Amino acid sequence: MEDKVILLDLWSSSFAMRVKIALAEKGIEYDCKAENLFDKSPLLLEMNPTHKRVPVLIHNGKPICESLVIVEYIDEVWHDKSPLLSSDPYQRSEARFWADYVDKKIFGIGKRVWSSKGEDQEAAKKELIEYLKTMEEELGEKHFFGGDTIGFVDVALVPITSWFYTFETYGNFSIEAECPKIIAWAKRCLGKESVAKSLPHPHNIYAYALGLKKKFGSA
Amino acid sequence: MEDKVILLDLWSSSFAMRVKIALAEKGIEYDCKAENLFDKSPLLLEMNPTHKRVPVLIHNGKPICESLVIVEYIDEVWHDKSPLLSSDPYQRSEARFWADYVDKKIFGIGKRVWSSKGEDQEAAKKELIEYLKTMEEELGEKHFFGGDTIGFVDVALVPITSWFYTFETYGNFSIEAECPKIIAWAKRCLGKESVAKSLPHPHNIYAYALGLKKKFGSA
Repeated sequence: MEDKVILLDLWSSSFAMRVKIALAEKGIEYDCKAENLFDKSPLLLEMNPTHKRVPVLIHNGKPICESLVIVEYIDEVWHDKSPLLSSDPYQRSEARFWADYVDKKIFGIGKRVWSSKGEDQEAAKKELIEYLKTMEEELGEKHFFGGDTIGFVDVALVPITSWFYTFETYGNFSIEAECPKIIAWAKRCLGKESVAKSLPHPHNIYAYALGLKKKFGSA
Repeated sequence: MEDKVILLDLWSSSFAMRVKIALAEKGIEYDCKAENLFDKSPLLLEMNPTHKRVPVLIHNGKPICESLVIVEYIDEVWHDKSPLLSSDPYQRSEARFWADYVDKKIFGIGKRVWSSKGEDQEAAKKELIEYLKTMEEELGEKHFFGGDTIGFVDVALVPITSWFYTFETYGNFSIEAECPKIIAWAKRCLGKESVAKSLPHPHNIYAYALGLKKKFGSA
């Protein structure tokens, strides 16, 4: 049976970008359906009744939800090409630990950096830098978190870098000045076609964030 | 080489209970070191410098942190006995999805149920019941979330049931009245030695929570 793969997507979602990178790394053909945050499709509501959010991967009719769960599923089903997780249980546990850290800490703080003000924004900026510095330590001298090739942690983290311009512009700070190694790593990732074609232009994200601010009256 | 396994533990931590159940299911001998929340050991700070919290599994000198990451590591290293995750990628993705749901929703709301007051507490109770009802739907007519035997989702969820008496007493409500199928499932889990010996008595948790409330002045 030929695989039928559908992605319920939102172009600005860092979570959905993870899935697009993983699909690209594996060379999987898929049908990408754009969702509208403010008018969710019946298909999305049917396929992810619990969270009602993107990304959802539909593989031969069956839904898989939550970005890291999806990426791991993709890695397991299409295991021959571009493995994202090591076959060694200890290295797998380390990758899962750091991907979870990215989820809980870095993805969690982003919105406060660009949409809050004053003290709250200053605290969010400080936290973001602290978390990124922790990731720099974990990266060490490696080319990618996965070593010589892109791995699970790279896929988990790199999408947020498409939001950095927005964070920096609204937060009035420079991430590169604080975390040059993360910026150098992000550039290496963007040198890969799988990443380059999955991440939107930072200016488009900025315009999107501006639109959200206007819509919700906090611009 | 004989495996040397150490668990940095806190008896009241639902996260640590998960690891104890998994170790018991696999029949792994280990050295359990009790940590003090208010005076963390140098070993804990060395082994989990990122989060500085229990549980930490130290396997032949190498630390694994974050409870679900640890449980999956245990399942991969000791894969022959009592598999917790299916060998089928789709079923694995479903189990990971629900374990993540338990983490984000149910474990996240517990403290608000027993330590908040008034409207905030009422909202937390309502949310908890809603999340547990979602889990009842997922359980369906199965004996365990894992099917006929305990699996990853059972290990993820059952520890919080040792806190139910505390939630009910401080929240002045009955979880059994709202979610009888979850309570029946919890009793089936407690019929397993691996669970029974890993969960503290609900009255001890209640006394512990009372102590915390007194210490932090919200009793």
